[in-house]
Amino acid sequence: MNMVALIQKKKDGKALQREEIQWIIDGYVAGSIPDYQISALLMAICFQGLDKEETFALTEAMRDSGDTIDLSPINGIKVDKHSTGGVGDKTTLVVAPLASACGVPVAKMSGRGLGFTGGTVDKMESIPGFRTTLEPSEFLAQVNAIGMAVIGQTAHITPADKKLYALRDVTATVDNFGLIASSIMSKKLAAGSDAIVLDVKVGDGAFMENLEDAVTLAKLMVEIGNSAGRRTVAAITEMGQPLGKAVGNSLEVIEAIETLKGNGPADITELALKLSGIMVYLGGKASSLEEGMEKTRAALTDGRGLSQLRRFIAAQGGNEAVVDDYSLFPQHTVEKKLTAETSGYVHRIEARCIGLASQHTGAGRATKEDTVDLSAGVYVHRKVGDAVQAGEVLATFYGNDEAKVDAAAAEASKAFTIGTDPVEAPKLIKEIIGLETEWN
Amino acid sequence: MNMVALIQKKKDGKALQREEIQWIIDGYVAGSIPDYQISALLMAICFQGLDKEETFALTEAMRDSGDTIDLSPINGIKVDKHSTGGVGDKTTLVVAPLASACGVPVAKMSGRGLGFTGGTVDKMESIPGFRTTLEPSEFLAQVNAIGMAVIGQTAHITPADKKLYALRDVTATVDNFGLIASSIMSKKLAAGSDAIVLDVKVGDGAFMENLEDAVTLAKLMVEIGNSAGRRTVAAITEMGQPLGKAVGNSLEVIEAIETLKGNGPADITELALKLSGIMVYLGGKASSLEEGMEKTRAALTDGRGLSQLRRFIAAQGGNEAVVDDYSLFPQHTVEKKLTAETSGYVHRIEARCIGLASQHTGAGRATKEDTVDLSAGVYVHRKVGDAVQAGEVLATFYGNDEAKVDAAAAEASKAFTIGTDPVEAPKLIKEIIGLETEWN
Repeated sequence: MNMVALIQKKKDGKALQREEIQWIIDGYVAGSIPDYQISALLMAICFQGLDKEETFALTEAMRDSGDTIDLSPINGIKVDKHSTGGVGDKTTLVVAPLASACGVPVAKMSGRGLGFTGGTVDKMESIPGFRTTLEPSEFLAQVNAIGMAVIGQTAHITPADKKLYALRDVTATVDNFGLIASSIMSKKLAAGSDAIVLDVKVGDGAFMENLEDAVTLAKLMVEIGNSAGRRTVAAITEMGQPLGKAVGNSLEVIEAIETLKGNGPADITELALKLSGIMVYLGGKASSLEEGMEKTRAALTDGRGLSQLRRFIAAQGGNEAVVDDYSLFPQHTVEKKLTAETSGYVHRIEARCIGLASQHTGAGRATKEDTVDLSAGVYVHRKVGDAVQAGEVLATFYGNDEAKVDAAAAEASKAFTIGTDPVEAPKLIKEIIGLETEWN
Repeated sequence: MNMVALIQKKKDGKALQREEIQWIIDGYVAGSIPDYQISALLMAICFQGLDKEETFALTEAMRDSGDTIDLSPINGIKVDKHSTGGVGDKTTLVVAPLASACGVPVAKMSGRGLGFTGGTVDKMESIPGFRTTLEPSEFLAQVNAIGMAVIGQTAHITPADKKLYALRDVTATVDNFGLIASSIMSKKLAAGSDAIVLDVKVGDGAFMENLEDAVTLAKLMVEIGNSAGRRTVAAITEMGQPLGKAVGNSLEVIEAIETLKGNGPADITELALKLSGIMVYLGGKASSLEEGMEKTRAALTDGRGLSQLRRFIAAQGGNEAVVDDYSLFPQHTVEKKLTAETSGYVHRIEARCIGLASQHTGAGRATKEDTVDLSAGVYVHRKVGDAVQAGEVLATFYGNDEAKVDAAAAEASKAFTIGTDPVEAPKLIKEIIGLETEWN
């Protein structure tokens, strides 16, 4: 095959064959096809698109470019859950204990945060002693023993995606549905679970800023998953304002614990019950989504979810006493408050702005090399739809560096819009895609 | 400035500013902007195009990326002539002596052949002793002394174009008018002449295969030249069949000499008179194109053009006796003939096919590193419109390698189409662009 001819083919709007895509990905990973030819192809793809067959082939070629995890030593239908990334998204820490408490094995690999979005691995590392790196045998054994494990992504998963993603980032070729969907799904397919629940965030704190785009992406990812033999369901959920009230690593773990204690904010509680309910259904432990949600609600109410979280923390070397004593988490030394200038109702809280503020406190990274302050972050006291009086606290900023916390508060002051008319809280779950798909 | 943002800007269909284009070209030549970002930009340009201002800015940025030749020590209005490349195109070797014989100084840099097209530098090197490399001071002094000089392109002219051209070639981003026009014109502007005559070839033996594309390219190049202060005129000329009858280095020099002796094929004679007539007019030695052509016709008829060629050969170290004794050229040892299978009229001679056949004899290069057999090539005995009897020779193939000459003859056997009906020879000069432009 000839790379120039393949670039020309895509430039001319023709579909690449599966074996051509395989050849390109293999050559790129092996180093025989240079970055400059791949970036020209990526730009042609941004203009001409990828059809479904091309997207499936690209996903599978990237999946097979490195290690794939064999979860067959784990009993039962393994269900993975993935979020496209948002602000204050600690859902995994609630959903995984609830689903596994209902008998669905969760063997999950998570990522770190970058920019205005956080990552589950950073959050878990705020628990003293917690290990996010396990040997493969430990990982499998832990899931068989207690029903769940969450680790960081290994270096050997989907190297083609890592290389392509880095190149897309510096060549203005990020925004194509086929490229985005194949990037996400190649990692999920390599991670080995039998079924996948996708949480596709939409709003200014997410990569997809409008519902139409989020639906397009979600449908494509569901089709990719199903075509590769993994039952896949996607929920499209609100990310116009932060999810829950806590943004920042230990703050979010504490909020997840509170949620499992039954004291969580309404939105994170609702989302966790829905997503874990889908997982229980896909995992074959309920005959309908409704039954799945009943089961996870029961696990929340009777404390089995919280017990499962304790077991999980202890199994990965963490100090499970944090569940009862939040002073065991890393502590902040600086605190600053943002108060309302007028009375009224919260009309808007820009999630992206709060995410950036949290990054400024030290809780996030501007570049991959930055280190993270695990105690830092933002707590949002009022959510969209809440009434507020002038002078009341809208948000608190935590950290260990006065200047950083000041910068965060300054950044976040633009995030809140207070109006005089009452408004309703935005709908949290916009749509669920793929639930009705026939599956044998 | 930020390269990712500039790629995105072009991808979004917005025009890049002059200073942005300058920054990109400077950074690319300096090595601070990598190939993979440039190739993404080039592909975006192929989809979104370059407007005229962008094309002018790109041309000038490339012109200024290396040395520019100062021809001001040469008296008079210096006129350059450039062909976009074709098969059997020895026009420079006729046009430059005729124009300089009429008082127009010609200080020209030419290229080498690649693929199915030939290059003037290779052709001149078939003259024993001829030097295509001169010191800048020699070059200028020769033009002042005898009125003309033709040398190979130096390494320091338009490095940005060299780098971009090589990248376009391997990323399927060759076919954009702005990129093609700026590549050609940046070199012409750097070469320093006051006026430029472009010979834009059209047909299957040229880069532009249809008239509409050739006209678009020609108009754009004329505008670039004029916008940079160089009076520019373009002739669009036939390249469906080879120009003249000889294809190959010494064969073409001999045909050029014969043309200056008044014995040349009709097409090359007509084209040389027209192009040199335009040069004489642009050089201020005639008050109209008609008067310019009268002057060059006189220089052909009275032998001043031929005398000028002798002077030129001698000045650059060549053996001027070749003009009278063709046995002084490198000689072939192998010869093969292609004869007509049926009687009729020649309807078509595919120039590209003859060009490839010539390359196969050893007269051309497949890659830049190949060496050239200066005696090899193809002689076309019949042109389109000529009557032919079955068994008559259509073409002769020359070289020094039996297998290569056989391969050439096999290749060329597909080039001729003989039909029963008489046909007219194709119109040689399709259009002249830029002649009517007001100029002060």
